[in-house]
Amino acid sequence: MTALTFVEFSAPYLIFLGDSADPLDAKTGLGIAHWRRERCLAQLRLPGCAADAGLPDMTVSQAAEAGARTFIVGVAPIGGRIPTSWIALLQTALGAGLDLVAGLHVRLSSIPALVEAAAERGRRLVDVRVPPADLPVASGRKRTGRRLLTVGTDCAVGKKYTALAIEQEMRRRGWNADFRATGQTGIMIAGSGIPIDAVISDFIAGAAEQLSPDNSPDHWDVIEGQGALTHPGYAGVTLGLLHGSQPDAFVVCHELGRESVGGWPDFRLPDVAQLIAVTKTMGALTNPAIRCVGVAINSASAGAEARRHFREEMQDRLGLPCVDPVIDGTGALVDYLERTL
Amino acid sequence: MTALTFVEFSAPYLIFLGDSADPLDAKTGLGIAHWRRERCLAQLRLPGCAADAGLPDMTVSQAAEAGARTFIVGVAPIGGRIPTSWIALLQTALGAGLDLVAGLHVRLSSIPALVEAAAERGRRLVDVRVPPADLPVASGRKRTGRRLLTVGTDCAVGKKYTALAIEQEMRRRGWNADFRATGQTGIMIAGSGIPIDAVISDFIAGAAEQLSPDNSPDHWDVIEGQGALTHPGYAGVTLGLLHGSQPDAFVVCHELGRESVGGWPDFRLPDVAQLIAVTKTMGALTNPAIRCVGVAINSASAGAEARRHFREEMQDRLGLPCVDPVIDGTGALVDYLERTL
Repeated sequence: MTALTFVEFSAPYLIFLGDSADPLDAKTGLGIAHWRRERCLAQLRLPGCAADAGLPDMTVSQAAEAGARTFIVGVAPIGGRIPTSWIALLQTALGAGLDLVAGLHVRLSSIPALVEAAAERGRRLVDVRVPPADLPVASGRKRTGRRLLTVGTDCAVGKKYTALAIEQEMRRRGWNADFRATGQTGIMIAGSGIPIDAVISDFIAGAAEQLSPDNSPDHWDVIEGQGALTHPGYAGVTLGLLHGSQPDAFVVCHELGRESVGGWPDFRLPDVAQLIAVTKTMGALTNPAIRCVGVAINSASAGAEARRHFREEMQDRLGLPCVDPVIDGTGALVDYLERTL
Repeated sequence: MTALTFVEFSAPYLIFLGDSADPLDAKTGLGIAHWRRERCLAQLRLPGCAADAGLPDMTVSQAAEAGARTFIVGVAPIGGRIPTSWIALLQTALGAGLDLVAGLHVRLSSIPALVEAAAERGRRLVDVRVPPADLPVASGRKRTGRRLLTVGTDCAVGKKYTALAIEQEMRRRGWNADFRATGQTGIMIAGSGIPIDAVISDFIAGAAEQLSPDNSPDHWDVIEGQGALTHPGYAGVTLGLLHGSQPDAFVVCHELGRESVGGWPDFRLPDVAQLIAVTKTMGALTNPAIRCVGVAINSASAGAEARRHFREEMQDRLGLPCVDPVIDGTGALVDYLERTL
């Protein structure tokens, strides 16, 4: 892809789901199995684990024998620390010849026992929160190929899910498309990417340029958005990602019923039409042809009636398709994109 | 100011101007002597040095005896490296009880001989390019006191100079005002600050919030801007700084005659009116009362006639005062600010 020391790792995987009684703790592992089943060989669950990715259960040595190349920590340990009991398991995985991948606050490379075991067997410790060290400042040069970016009215409104679902829909239609990950969970799902919020601020747009390099004219990069242009904490990240991505098209993601920024109750969410306008204004700098191709909502807590009403409003007021990707899929978005190419 | 490990250092200074035949190499040292003469005790020049800050020449031991507390490397070594001959001098300064301050690409703390000498005498090595490690995400909470931010149509158009000149003009009028530095040269001039472009991208706005904390209602923070909202490489930094600064007022800085982004010839500079509009739109998120109070131009290369013409255009078209701070001072900007309070 590039000469950069990108986060990147090899399939097939043994997905470690831990021992938590709450399956949500294993959402990264479940996400990898959902979106990248073809890269998953097996799962490893400890006693008490409530999560099930629907993969064959294997021990480390069974998985290594069956050809697994990477052991992925697909669970967030309770309290954020790696339990001592896991260290032995991770050493075993390295000893069996697997690379280790994790997206924890505690870096794998900060644990001497793992560094030593990895060095002994020539295996890699991949911390997906750590960005490449050699990122350039953005050039602004227009790249070949096509790009779609998911943007949001807030954090945690479905930008990653929507991008993955659009990639899946494009591929289903035989399009040449790749999801590009910008956050830790996305990177673990995709097997590569750049944790954009961990990049030094001078290099945000430059990192985004590296993430979706020149490609064939009919190729689509479907880029996972971060933050929101109207977010009081993270808008700088969002703008750099927008500029470096140079998207031809964007989809606005929104959680139905949410009215203020999550964690910032004094900040009202922007109206979708407002967010479209500001995204076009700012995005036009690096791609004057930028356009909105639809709205993706998370309507889980709002219900069917609110969803129907909101969809009609988007259609009538903005002339844009609106879907809940979990319920409706993203076909209507890709249809609209195709019609307006 | 805050409990953070802010870059901050103590006066009076011995300013080291090096040995370069080009006085521009010593512009940081000259800038400190120009804007903060009251904090400067003396200068130290090696044979061949073409720069003169107009301070008494002293050796390290003379300056130490006279009460100097900090040795500032006010010159960029040719080629970016610290010449071996300087190391002995820096060791001498530490040995004489002075702290060392530099803004070089090579960190002082990466030179073992200096680390050792500093430890022996209990002195500090201050690398102004290194941001605090403990920055928070921005809260978005409105702070007390007033803030003015300089924004630009590009990098290197006079944002730092304009902010320093406005601080000076405010203080001349007896206002309670402080320049807030966001880049290495500004930090060396101010004696404190945060190198905003070196901050991890999640914390840009948070860093800007720390830089201008709550203050008395009549106090003005005059904040040094960075980059440009329309810069293809650095706009993310600019937006985070805008959001975290929550400016009540901003001044647009522009180099007369410059038509494209420096180093990005394919990107035309925005029109001043356009930049004002986008700054107000984006800045309103954290301060809905944001307004433009004037335009500061660098007209050195454009000449007097072009300057007169541009000033009239700004006045007639936008109703805003326009000055070249070097030629006209910033009185007209502060007048306008005061009239529109």
